[in-house]
Amino acid sequence: MLEKIDLGVTIDKETYRQEKERLTTRLGELQRTLHDMGIPVLVLFEGWDAGGKGTLINELLMPMDPRSFRVYNFKKQENEEELFRPFLWRYWTKTPEEGQITIFNRSYYSDLFYRKSTDTLSMQRLMKQANEFEQTLSEDGMIIFKFFIHISKKEQKKRFDKLLDNDITAWRVTPRDKKENKHYDKLYKKVNRGLELTDNDCAPWAIIEGEQKDYALIKVLSILERRLEKAINDVKMTPKIKLTPLIEVGDKPFQSKILDGIVLDQVISEEAYQSQIKEYQKQIRLLQFQLYRERIPMIIGFEGWDAAGKGGCIKRLTRNLDPRGYTVYPTASPSDIEKKHHYLWRFWRDIPKNGHIGVWDRTWYGRVMVEPIEGFCTQEEFDRSYREINEFEKQLSDWGAIVIKFWLQIDQDEQLRRFTDREGNPDKEWKITEEDWRNREKWELYKIAVDDMLLKTSTVDAPWVIVEAQSKYYARIKVLKQTIAAIEKRLDN
Amino acid sequence: MLEKIDLGVTIDKETYRQEKERLTTRLGELQRTLHDMGIPVLVLFEGWDAGGKGTLINELLMPMDPRSFRVYNFKKQENEEELFRPFLWRYWTKTPEEGQITIFNRSYYSDLFYRKSTDTLSMQRLMKQANEFEQTLSEDGMIIFKFFIHISKKEQKKRFDKLLDNDITAWRVTPRDKKENKHYDKLYKKVNRGLELTDNDCAPWAIIEGEQKDYALIKVLSILERRLEKAINDVKMTPKIKLTPLIEVGDKPFQSKILDGIVLDQVISEEAYQSQIKEYQKQIRLLQFQLYRERIPMIIGFEGWDAAGKGGCIKRLTRNLDPRGYTVYPTASPSDIEKKHHYLWRFWRDIPKNGHIGVWDRTWYGRVMVEPIEGFCTQEEFDRSYREINEFEKQLSDWGAIVIKFWLQIDQDEQLRRFTDREGNPDKEWKITEEDWRNREKWELYKIAVDDMLLKTSTVDAPWVIVEAQSKYYARIKVLKQTIAAIEKRLDN
Repeated sequence: MLEKIDLGVTIDKETYRQEKERLTTRLGELQRTLHDMGIPVLVLFEGWDAGGKGTLINELLMPMDPRSFRVYNFKKQENEEELFRPFLWRYWTKTPEEGQITIFNRSYYSDLFYRKSTDTLSMQRLMKQANEFEQTLSEDGMIIFKFFIHISKKEQKKRFDKLLDNDITAWRVTPRDKKENKHYDKLYKKVNRGLELTDNDCAPWAIIEGEQKDYALIKVLSILERRLEKAINDVKMTPKIKLTPLIEVGDKPFQSKILDGIVLDQVISEEAYQSQIKEYQKQIRLLQFQLYRERIPMIIGFEGWDAAGKGGCIKRLTRNLDPRGYTVYPTASPSDIEKKHHYLWRFWRDIPKNGHIGVWDRTWYGRVMVEPIEGFCTQEEFDRSYREINEFEKQLSDWGAIVIKFWLQIDQDEQLRRFTDREGNPDKEWKITEEDWRNREKWELYKIAVDDMLLKTSTVDAPWVIVEAQSKYYARIKVLKQTIAAIEKRLDN
Repeated sequence: MLEKIDLGVTIDKETYRQEKERLTTRLGELQRTLHDMGIPVLVLFEGWDAGGKGTLINELLMPMDPRSFRVYNFKKQENEEELFRPFLWRYWTKTPEEGQITIFNRSYYSDLFYRKSTDTLSMQRLMKQANEFEQTLSEDGMIIFKFFIHISKKEQKKRFDKLLDNDITAWRVTPRDKKENKHYDKLYKKVNRGLELTDNDCAPWAIIEGEQKDYALIKVLSILERRLEKAINDVKMTPKIKLTPLIEVGDKPFQSKILDGIVLDQVISEEAYQSQIKEYQKQIRLLQFQLYRERIPMIIGFEGWDAAGKGGCIKRLTRNLDPRGYTVYPTASPSDIEKKHHYLWRFWRDIPKNGHIGVWDRTWYGRVMVEPIEGFCTQEEFDRSYREINEFEKQLSDWGAIVIKFWLQIDQDEQLRRFTDREGNPDKEWKITEEDWRNREKWELYKIAVDDMLLKTSTVDAPWVIVEAQSKYYARIKVLKQTIAAIEKRLDN
């Protein structure tokens, strides 16, 4: 993409002055409209060192209301918290909420461009992740800009020399910078190829000729103006419509019947349970240490009918674990801040460091169960969810995580018994709410949703394990056994 | 505190079994009551390596509803993000919200006990900060437990040897652990002294005899039971009452008149403004680089009447700064999560890394202005606020930060002119809301609040600078000049 760029373009002082005034006023207006409409905007700045990103960002911020923007600066080198997490983690967690503009000064593209080729995950795979990230967020309504500020090798050297000539600024030119200029041509090829591979409809690259700063600024502002105007009009033309429920009861042809096929008569004696659970808990503690030593992360999700025994399974699973190495994340309704982000945002935020185990009591699968049934998402959002979830879990698995998901199955009669038991027991009645009874009435709807979910999201890298949970003892043993098997399988490789 | 401890205490199996069952059931109940009443609980575990903290924490978690607790594990060594921030930052940001139980596995006490004495901030000062942290949170309603798990040098060695004997566990004993055992006696003195100095009413230490694990667990659970029961009763006896407003109009004897004494007739010509502002912006950019190189953080707060021009001053202040080195934090009403924490929590979260500049558009001073006037806090909370804020700013200054606060002063006539101007101007009318008009009616109340605030919170380490803002040009120049002066003063030292 860079080879066709004419770096000699300029703009005259008078046009600059007029356009700048017009555009900054206009951007202030647009920002307020975006804020009122709840549209999130992400603006990435990439480019050569000394290209002038900092100045451009400051000029861009001038007309903006500071209550609605945030700037994040990313170094080429990640810190420990970040290195121990998936590639996109530090970006996902900083995406803007509805109505906010977020500016990334450098981004995952710097990670890609400056990454040494010796890294284990291939460049290709990370580019794919970058594309998925942008597609997921832009389909969710985010407007994404990617600016690459381009200057020539000669111009870069000139700018470095100018800094070096002055005692106060000389320190800013690091040995790394000098090296970048020396190897400009090699890096150019890598960057050029990377730009091509990540130029997509939802987040196209804009190459900014950076040698004359006036020209660069007006070009950036004009591109922002044009696309933001279009985005605002598009949203006005197609308001989000939420129909409820998105799932209907009734036999569809070829409807899968995974849940109906589950046999629930397994039992295990108390005695066998007591001795086996102790044994497995010992085993899993030792395996946890091995995961820690080999820096393998593990993601365990629990889903299942209300009162299926998720909490009890999690307690037995974690009982002997070293608390320094695992965290249980209970998933409740999203907070007001979480509601203003993509639904995967809060799960990204909690992804543990490598070597650690994250256990979710309910998960991101709420998106394809409660949300379509209660009308918390639109048809379009629902339609994208399976793909988004599969991509999310694939990214975790690419990062190196063992990903496993348990579906705890009980039948309607058993659920009724447990509900009634809870209501009669002062130690347990807090576990049962009006909502549980309401959800129970929607059993048939949930059955259809769950059947689809199990079918579409059980992947080689992130399988669903069905747990027959009619017997609590049986269920707990199976969860421990399967977790152990998953870890051992990985360690054997 | 340790010298009087008899490490030989034990408990028999039968008592253990009975007490454990009773206490775990009871703790489950108490947790639910705490949750319903919105009481936050912080439980710290400290103690010798191999003392059994991990096992105790797991046992403690067993009866708990995972939706209401969270465990944080702190290493003795902080990571970069943490090293670059104030001592208490990583703890403040992880304090529990209302109704939550948070467990710290190691804490700032490990930082203190294991810190090398060569560190610049003295041990005494950090202990003072720890005490302030606990006092502030406990007065705000948090119940804080501090457990120190104590074992003898001999017992520690025995436990290390047992781990070393087994191939699978040997790696867990690090060279550092061995060193700890070797220097146990020296460390013992340091720890013992530290425990004495940080034993306070609001967060007393409980020394747990850790040699028999059964005894240790029952003691921990009993202490939790007793104090949580008491805390629940105390809260029931003294509900929080919010009277509004806490500030009254009317001449109090000896009322200070700081605002009335401000002369507002300063002006500056457009020409002088244009040339000076450019010059100062250049200067401050160079000073920013020096702060960055010397790793000095800077905290700048802006307060003032509505329409006094805070936003305009901030834009001129930051216009030339390198965006990698500063962040503007606009302070709006707290989110639902923020409301469930101590009011300083959200400001702690945003404290920048050292070498960086944080600029707040409105600040933590809302606590002593809008909150008492609108009835968002109780009389007791308000009474504590000046001390809490002064301690907060002192901690930032102890960390090494330059702290400066600007009060932008205009008179009522000028405010009316600006409000009216905004309403008539399509580019500005978004800046004016119904609330601004309502606040204007409370001018006299705010005047009293602000006068008290300026008097009580202008400290040597964190001074208030009054900015005569009747002329916008004059105000912007003064803000830049004073910021430059504050930086230069520090750099000259």
